[in-house]
Amino acid sequence: MTIKSRIRTIPHYPHQGIMFRDITTLLKDSVGLRATVQELAHRYKDMKIDKVVGIESRGFIVGTPLAYELGLGFVPIRKRGKLPAETVGRDYQLEYGSDRIEIHVDAIRTGDRVLLVDDLIATGGTAEAAVGLIEDMGGEVVECAFVIDLPDIGGRARLEKLGQKVFALCEFEGD
Amino acid sequence: MTIKSRIRTIPHYPHQGIMFRDITTLLKDSVGLRATVQELAHRYKDMKIDKVVGIESRGFIVGTPLAYELGLGFVPIRKRGKLPAETVGRDYQLEYGSDRIEIHVDAIRTGDRVLLVDDLIATGGTAEAAVGLIEDMGGEVVECAFVIDLPDIGGRARLEKLGQKVFALCEFEGD
Repeated sequence: MTIKSRIRTIPHYPHQGIMFRDITTLLKDSVGLRATVQELAHRYKDMKIDKVVGIESRGFIVGTPLAYELGLGFVPIRKRGKLPAETVGRDYQLEYGSDRIEIHVDAIRTGDRVLLVDDLIATGGTAEAAVGLIEDMGGEVVECAFVIDLPDIGGRARLEKLGQKVFALCEFEGD
Repeated sequence: MTIKSRIRTIPHYPHQGIMFRDITTLLKDSVGLRATVQELAHRYKDMKIDKVVGIESRGFIVGTPLAYELGLGFVPIRKRGKLPAETVGRDYQLEYGSDRIEIHVDAIRTGDRVLLVDDLIATGGTAEAAVGLIEDMGGEVVECAFVIDLPDIGGRARLEKLGQKVFALCEFEGD
């Protein structure tokens, strides 16, 4: 319970009816940050990962210390227009409208074994687009790692249907 | 030159005449990420820091692995409306208009010795607002740490005039 018990739930944020799972209470605590990074590092240390890719911006907070602990480099996937060099991008659907994520074209090399990291998987729309970007560049996504899975929303099942492996440190049901 | 030589310069981004210093080439490289975190950790390991605070979003990429290596917790300062719980905020001036950064009210305790981290200091406007937020909450900013200082733009001098200590791993002059 080290990790799950340190995650704060904020009812009705950002919208009525949403139970927001807030990792800032987990990460401001030295024991919580250490446990989060070390549990993930323990899982991935022998999987011959080449790079850790994190999704803006809470994926940066989890992915960078994990890359550091594993002795790897870190690559950010960012929202539209935030990366300064040449990028490739993918659009994905939101509840209302769409959004776009991008990655630098020189960030992944053909054959790189990539660990994709974000704080939370809900619908899986962003993660699916991120997997597509990494594969567009010739990378292989070894697994998609999250701190939190909301299984009732179906993102894990969606990624698994695409052949992806999914791992989360904890689950919150009933969302 | 391990660190400075791995930073990529992108001319005229995001505007004509700006030389953008891009840390993604530093951090995607395992040696670059490791050197960045370890040089900072070496400086701060005996300074009795209580928390590392990073500014959205490149400050997350540098600050979280540093907090992890130092055995501390990490606190994000985010743009307006991004943090889910109760916040305090400060407005600051941009070249055109203004912006606002926020921090959770329970993120810093009175007397906490805080290391403030971002990737780069240019005008120092965001960093000055961040120092103010930490002090509003009773924290003491031990030092402001950056990967890159652009001394010609004057941010370091601005923070030092306020009594802050400033450290950067490298400088780019002539900007």
